[in-house]
Amino acid sequence: MGRFDEFTRFRQEMNKKILEQGNLGIKRFFALDEQAYHAGAIDARSKELMGLVASMVLRCDDCITYHVIQAREKGATRQELFEAFHIALVVGGSIVIPHLRRAVDFLEQLENAPPSTAL
Amino acid sequence: MGRFDEFTRFRQEMNKKILEQGNLGIKRFFALDEQAYHAGAIDARSKELMGLVASMVLRCDDCITYHVIQAREKGATRQELFEAFHIALVVGGSIVIPHLRRAVDFLEQLENAPPSTAL
Amino acid sequence: MGRFDEFTRFRQEMNKKILEQGNLGIKRFFALDEQAYHAGAIDARSKELMGLVASMVLRCDDCITYHVIQAREKGATRQELFEAFHIALVVGGSIVIPHLRRAVDFLEQLENAPPSTAL
Amino acid sequence: MGRFDEFTRFRQEMNKKILEQGNLGIKRFFALDEQAYHAGAIDARSKELMGLVASMVLRCDDCITYHVIQAREKGATRQELFEAFHIALVVGGSIVIPHLRRAVDFLEQLENAPPSTAL
Amino acid sequence: MGRFDEFTRFRQEMNKKILEQGNLGIKRFFALDEQAYHAGAIDARSKELMGLVASMVLRCDDCITYHVIQAREKGATRQELFEAFHIALVVGGSIVIPHLRRAVDFLEQLENAPPSTAL
Amino acid sequence: MGRFDEFTRFRQEMNKKILEQGNLGIKRFFALDEQAYHAGAIDARSKELMGLVASMVLRCDDCITYHVIQAREKGATRQELFEAFHIALVVGGSIVIPHLRRAVDFLEQLENAPPSTAL
Repeated sequence: MGRFDEFTRFRQEMNKKILEQGNLGIKRFFALDEQAYHAGAIDARSKELMGLVASMVLRCDDCITYHVIQAREKGATRQELFEAFHIALVVGGSIVIPHLRRAVDFLEQLENAPPSTAL
Repeated sequence: MGRFDEFTRFRQEMNKKILEQGNLGIKRFFALDEQAYHAGAIDARSKELMGLVASMVLRCDDCITYHVIQAREKGATRQELFEAFHIALVVGGSIVIPHLRRAVDFLEQLENAPPSTAL
Repeated sequence: MGRFDEFTRFRQEMNKKILEQGNLGIKRFFALDEQAYHAGAIDARSKELMGLVASMVLRCDDCITYHVIQAREKGATRQELFEAFHIALVVGGSIVIPHLRRAVDFLEQLENAPPSTAL
Repeated sequence: MGRFDEFTRFRQEMNKKILEQGNLGIKRFFALDEQAYHAGAIDARSKELMGLVASMVLRCDDCITYHVIQAREKGATRQELFEAFHIALVVGGSIVIPHLRRAVDFLEQLENAPPSTAL
Repeated sequence: MGRFDEFTRFRQEMNKKILEQGNLGIKRFFALDEQAYHAGAIDARSKELMGLVASMVLRCDDCITYHVIQAREKGATRQELFEAFHIALVVGGSIVIPHLRRAVDFLEQLENAPPSTAL
Repeated sequence: MGRFDEFTRFRQEMNKKILEQGNLGIKRFFALDEQAYHAGAIDARSKELMGLVASMVLRCDDCITYHVIQAREKGATRQELFEAFHIALVVGGSIVIPHLRRAVDFLEQLENAPPSTAL
């Protein structure tokens, strides 16, 4: 799937370049970002859905894409994703709608064509 | 006009898919969003200009595009649009400028080529 | 508990005044806002935690206070609340910290003195 | 009226101190800010309502207070103010609600007690 | 100085409570936040001014207060602070003004009464 | 370099069209925006880095691109740029990361191919 693979390739390539620069604070932030979604008192799927809602109200398309992929990998259903979208829409308002359109477009691509590369 | 038609096509196609999912809250939000701009104590053109200013300070390109189209259809002049842009620029600061550039670019396309499809 | 009661009293009094004005769109939005957190494919507690994370990254103290109360009423533990805080902190950055301080201050008040009025 | 007078006094005192510092760019920005709401192709009342909607979606209480005062002075009715609030609510989402409550509270104070000082 | 001491006391007390909860990710974020302003290729004073500008455009009063204190401790002059304010004002727009007023009010208090406690 | 030249061309063309419209307030804002980064008590390079941090936490790609170019022209090193990125990341959170990726991608293009046109 073109869009998914392109997203993943750019993400991995730039993360590599960013981390190679050797700025310790940025490295630690990247590690911290990943750990925030590990299962704890709250399960990993719910955490991904929380990250998804946060990304939607802050209107970050790449973050939305990432959490849609992760939430699905952790078993989130279409109905759960739309309930998360609903919360984001009510909290964040109509400016969330263009991001919702792109999220649903991406979700359909993801359902129709399995990604050829791991995230 | 390519950009206008592409904008409209994607908007209509994705709105259809979103509403077909059957999430009642999202459906109601979409209805509410549309009603907010109906004429009342404030006329429809002024409401579209308010939506435009709100979209600019929140820096939502698709929302800006939508309200530029609507404001023009309701009779807003170029001078009125630029006065709305001015308010958005002062309230929202220089980060609004890239969105202003794209808004003016879109406005010129709209003036030079009448849209071939209804919104 | 002073702060909780004051928060609830002002909230209820102003909601009443806002709804009495008779603006149909605002009324519908308030109804929609409440429905978004009803249990569905996602349970009510998880939805409150999602609302909490969204409120924190958008830095809305009153919204945080509201969702902390609701999440606790639906059984969220202190550990779950802090994991939600953690996600909000990583997604939203250090500007979330002042809101986190006030949230924890409020949480302690809530634990130490049961509210005397229903929300 | 206490709250209005306190708002005006602090505003005037600090603006004076800021401008006395002699930073030319800040001075010019303050002048620019004031000019944006002068009548032009769009009338002054509509511009104040636009400033109000922008302030609400950006959730700036002092800015909302200022534009409520100005809009009323330029003849905006309660119904017009609530239609502007409605647009802000739909565009900006439920995080606008706490600011809406404070705006309506302030509006009632303004209606019940005429300000004793000019803005 | 009352406001400074109250700010510092609440900040220290709540940070202590937050860190005592034992959420490792939050602890690490707090450490990371502090390290970001240590002198490196960029000196500590310039970093505090960068943190100040970022806090102003994101409109976080507590963050502004903190960076004003830190910038002054690292030798930033009043003129440098106002040039940083100017950049924040132009980038972030007129919604920054209420925060600028409070920042200048706080700065005057800081100049007139030396803090009695360390931050 | 394609991306740089395209960025510059569109920026210059649209700025010209915006200023030709004759809205005095917008003209003045553009002048003010440019002046904010002139050397004063703070040197021009530090001001560009401040503008860069502000642009990153507000997540404005075009603004980031502009300040990366300007900071480099004023002598900012790669290490200084990454320390500014670090501050932006900690203040603004993980939603800054996609913008950081694009900034580093752009920085590499800038280092590998000197721009053929002046900004």
